[in-house]
Amino acid sequence: MLAVENLLDQIHLPKDLKKLSPDQLAQVADELRGYIIKVVSSHPGHLGASLGTVELTVALHYVFNTPYDRIIWDVGHQAYGHKILTGRKELFPTNRCYGGLSGFPSMSESEYDAFGTGHSSTSISAALGMATASVLKGETDRQHIAVIGDGAMTGGMAFEGLNNAGVSHSNILVILNDNGISIDASSGALSKYFTRMTASKSYNHFRNSVWDMMGGNTSRHHSHRRFVSKMIGAAKSLISPKQSNLFEAMNFRYFGPIDGHDLHTLVEVLEDLRTIQGPKLLHVVTKKGKGLKEAEESPTVYHAPGKFDSKTGKLIPEGINLSLAPKYQDVFGKTIIELAKKNPKIVGITPAMPTGCSLYMMMKKMPERVFDVGIAEQHAVTFAAGLAAEGMVPFCNIYSSFSQRAYDQIIHDVALQRLPVVFCLDRAGLVGEDGATHHGAFDLAFLRPIPDLIISAPMNERELRNLMFTAQSPENNLPFVIRYPRGRGVTPRWKTPLEIQPIGKGACIYEGGDTAILSIGHIGNNAKKAIEMVRKTHPEKNFGLYNMIYLKPLDTGLLHEVFTRYRRVFTLEDGMINGGLASAVCEFAAQNGYRQELIPLGLPDRFISHGSVADLQKACGLDAESIARMLLQ
Amino acid sequence: MLAVENLLDQIHLPKDLKKLSPDQLAQVADELRGYIIKVVSSHPGHLGASLGTVELTVALHYVFNTPYDRIIWDVGHQAYGHKILTGRKELFPTNRCYGGLSGFPSMSESEYDAFGTGHSSTSISAALGMATASVLKGETDRQHIAVIGDGAMTGGMAFEGLNNAGVSHSNILVILNDNGISIDASSGALSKYFTRMTASKSYNHFRNSVWDMMGGNTSRHHSHRRFVSKMIGAAKSLISPKQSNLFEAMNFRYFGPIDGHDLHTLVEVLEDLRTIQGPKLLHVVTKKGKGLKEAEESPTVYHAPGKFDSKTGKLIPEGINLSLAPKYQDVFGKTIIELAKKNPKIVGITPAMPTGCSLYMMMKKMPERVFDVGIAEQHAVTFAAGLAAEGMVPFCNIYSSFSQRAYDQIIHDVALQRLPVVFCLDRAGLVGEDGATHHGAFDLAFLRPIPDLIISAPMNERELRNLMFTAQSPENNLPFVIRYPRGRGVTPRWKTPLEIQPIGKGACIYEGGDTAILSIGHIGNNAKKAIEMVRKTHPEKNFGLYNMIYLKPLDTGLLHEVFTRYRRVFTLEDGMINGGLASAVCEFAAQNGYRQELIPLGLPDRFISHGSVADLQKACGLDAESIARMLLQ
Repeated sequence: MLAVENLLDQIHLPKDLKKLSPDQLAQVADELRGYIIKVVSSHPGHLGASLGTVELTVALHYVFNTPYDRIIWDVGHQAYGHKILTGRKELFPTNRCYGGLSGFPSMSESEYDAFGTGHSSTSISAALGMATASVLKGETDRQHIAVIGDGAMTGGMAFEGLNNAGVSHSNILVILNDNGISIDASSGALSKYFTRMTASKSYNHFRNSVWDMMGGNTSRHHSHRRFVSKMIGAAKSLISPKQSNLFEAMNFRYFGPIDGHDLHTLVEVLEDLRTIQGPKLLHVVTKKGKGLKEAEESPTVYHAPGKFDSKTGKLIPEGINLSLAPKYQDVFGKTIIELAKKNPKIVGITPAMPTGCSLYMMMKKMPERVFDVGIAEQHAVTFAAGLAAEGMVPFCNIYSSFSQRAYDQIIHDVALQRLPVVFCLDRAGLVGEDGATHHGAFDLAFLRPIPDLIISAPMNERELRNLMFTAQSPENNLPFVIRYPRGRGVTPRWKTPLEIQPIGKGACIYEGGDTAILSIGHIGNNAKKAIEMVRKTHPEKNFGLYNMIYLKPLDTGLLHEVFTRYRRVFTLEDGMINGGLASAVCEFAAQNGYRQELIPLGLPDRFISHGSVADLQKACGLDAESIARMLLQ
Repeated sequence: MLAVENLLDQIHLPKDLKKLSPDQLAQVADELRGYIIKVVSSHPGHLGASLGTVELTVALHYVFNTPYDRIIWDVGHQAYGHKILTGRKELFPTNRCYGGLSGFPSMSESEYDAFGTGHSSTSISAALGMATASVLKGETDRQHIAVIGDGAMTGGMAFEGLNNAGVSHSNILVILNDNGISIDASSGALSKYFTRMTASKSYNHFRNSVWDMMGGNTSRHHSHRRFVSKMIGAAKSLISPKQSNLFEAMNFRYFGPIDGHDLHTLVEVLEDLRTIQGPKLLHVVTKKGKGLKEAEESPTVYHAPGKFDSKTGKLIPEGINLSLAPKYQDVFGKTIIELAKKNPKIVGITPAMPTGCSLYMMMKKMPERVFDVGIAEQHAVTFAAGLAAEGMVPFCNIYSSFSQRAYDQIIHDVALQRLPVVFCLDRAGLVGEDGATHHGAFDLAFLRPIPDLIISAPMNERELRNLMFTAQSPENNLPFVIRYPRGRGVTPRWKTPLEIQPIGKGACIYEGGDTAILSIGHIGNNAKKAIEMVRKTHPEKNFGLYNMIYLKPLDTGLLHEVFTRYRRVFTLEDGMINGGLASAVCEFAAQNGYRQELIPLGLPDRFISHGSVADLQKACGLDAESIARMLLQ
């Protein structure tokens, strides 16, 4: 069938999609895929996941009655097609920009976004909550669908949801979007299990012959549906004997695996599933990056590729600039290898982020000493605790906002037992375009109350290296947090000699007149810039700058010095003012009878949205210009 | 065989146990069970779990080479027998007392406690960490055993551990201690699955005939072992076709189910399993409370029964005192019913604690509106968020220290979406005998940085009721935390009329001279007592007392009043000073230019051990006497 008209242009809401015949859906999918590629090529975002779910998205909105029926996109990387089909096509080029669309589903953005996501493995729990509400409200015709990847399925929370849903009598459909990959390759036994399921002869036979046979058949006739059901049943029994599989053990009715790029099959199967009550799971096999050859071949690179040529798929290089400072993550990735070569007790742990945190570098060189434990932050931390209990020195690298998932384990399994796990919290502070769900805004505040925990944040590459060196040295016998931001540091020639960073000691960067800034972490560079800017316009003004380096133990010696000397003291951090450095310094001042004016700079008591780090810093008054203005007030 | 001598007296360490013949083990088990019953009857603690694992404990220490081999007891309620066999028999009567043995395994207490526990579902992760360390250190003969209940297995973290362990090549043995019960009956699909597995004819046949047949055979002969293996294999294949079960899907070798009270079987099977490399799971069926009829029949009551008659098992009543104030948990349990009768949107959620939090009361009256989601705090919170997204008013009751497990979900799924979930955090503050793992010490500090969250703590029953009333009223449209302690309140006639507790407003209890105390929550009663005590000895002294009620939003109006009027201000809370009310008040004072002396009372920056609440309050300076002394300084 020739695509004589642009169908996507006619679709503003799912009701427009429903006007089309099933035969037209493949064209919609093609156009949708093309539009995603076109926009994301010049407005960078998450590409591969959304390309993989184009057909599923079209089929879901075609079959189900959204927004009355609820679709929850786990993590949400794969929801661009959903956004485009639900009234946000024209706005899509504002994706992830300050004031524009969020890169994730968001309840405040659209009624079609039934539940906001960003972190992994929440969809089954949320869908079950909604389905339970529908039962209580008597809305028994409402459908509740959680679309969850095989990676997200390794998160314990997904399992908790399955366990509870399996005994509920609510209408919940879990769609397992199985593409064998998270951001890096999925890891763990579950992933292998899914591979065995989908690689089995019976599945391939089923897919290749039975569905192909029916490929041209668009009839929605009852007998046809019955046939489809029967076929699914047959395939199921071939692959997985009765009550044999994981999901059936959890009391879900299991269907699949089916080809997630075959729209006819998807529509037929979903129509059938609509009529089946109770908890059910559809296993859909998709290809991440589907439709863009480069993305299919390099799914990790094309998870969020930056700018690329929409025709060829080729990445557009950022422009190599040798004078650029390195990314903090790469300084971590290279330094841990340096340390591990000398200290055989060092091991690396990542919950599914080897590329994002650059632990892949060590993974290549010392594969037996690096563990990608899957999307499983809780396990990552207690696994690290187990290693530390046996004398190893685990470096557990977790994105700051994901470390919220392991809060209890940090307290209960690590700190309480004084096990010297080294936590490297990447993406601390404002992360930019990923927005509210991903900012590492809370770490300083939620870690500070934990006893026997050392908490540090480097201002530059040298300090990151030295903190890593110190954490694994005999100087330290406690759990040790090092939190650093997304993005680049400040030192192009970063590979400085490794030295002990004295625990609990800060440093004076500038001495000043009557005003000083106490900063922690990389954001201190903004204070430095601010002071340098002011120096140019007001050469008579001198401002002190003190780099705390450690939030805990707090350098009380340095604080006494500062509070004795200065009339006015600022604190500066890229985390919540409530509970972080500002709190620590206020407590110190109040309890020591200091009476200076204290002005806290940091994240205010609200959730910060998405946008460039520069935009967001400006909005929070944390950019150099804003700090300079504050200093001059 | 006649028990002519006391064997337990001869066992000081597992090496003494190993000297016995297999035939003597049943006697050891009997004596161990008797000793546990005797001691716990007069020194209250957790009873049922440890009675259920007596044989397993004896078998494990008989077969394995502890402490070189590592045993991790998940949660740890079941580890009394382990403690008694590993050098702590004489100390066992000090169990849970201040300065005595911990009620949970603790690394600092004994080298036989390979890893401390208390919270659920950590054992597989910790054991895998240890097993991985052994691989890296070349200690390939070392065994690593996680003993985990069917209840704890519903915690997502256990699943994360299985997923990772399934692809490891380390020596990990997971023993599933399946007794069908957590504290209340286990809930969820997994529990039903285990029931199906163990209720199957083949298991019973296997247990009753095959093992009985071998019952008298104590030979450790190789051919016997081979026979046992073969039998296990046979039973396995009868019950569960190849790769059919949940654990095999996770790439574990699965063995069982076997009778966990049959010492011969246990010893034989464990000896065999010792020789099998890689991840393996042994499914053991036990009876909680085994050997004490009352405990077997009422496992929830006898989970931690208080004092009882060691001969008859009958509970020794506390002595009914009608003038006693009610437990906070019961005020919660009764008030939610009162509210739910009027507000049809209210539902109750508990992660496996219906009895502990008294939600069982509503469960009885409105079973369709209460959800026990299993040991699954993460799921509980996001499930609640899903309900709230559909307009329901979920009251999600979680013990304070377990809420640490759901920290990310509180931020990411609830607060960020401004969903009006009501969190009732029971067991906040010092909980007493359960100790460091269970104190609700951190909640105020880790919740305060979260935007759009209301945080409250009642000083008495009336305020608890009014806060619950307010949270579900049209006055509130935000997530709302109410934290209250374990134990009794202060008002025997507690059923006061329900009134709005104005959000963000505190109250003056006493006006004073130059010193005031700002308190939050039930601990404020200690301040009240202190002030009343001082009044008697120093009638000329007046101290102000202000009950904040809300930590967030902070009653800044009241604080301005207090800071204008008083020269010296105390803060009082039963949580960490770092980050809690003390921090909030210090921030307020510093940022508003108040110069008063500020003295924080609360939990210091260290982990607090176990003991009576009175002992622990004294140790932290939070009892009325200590507060009175502070006031007079």
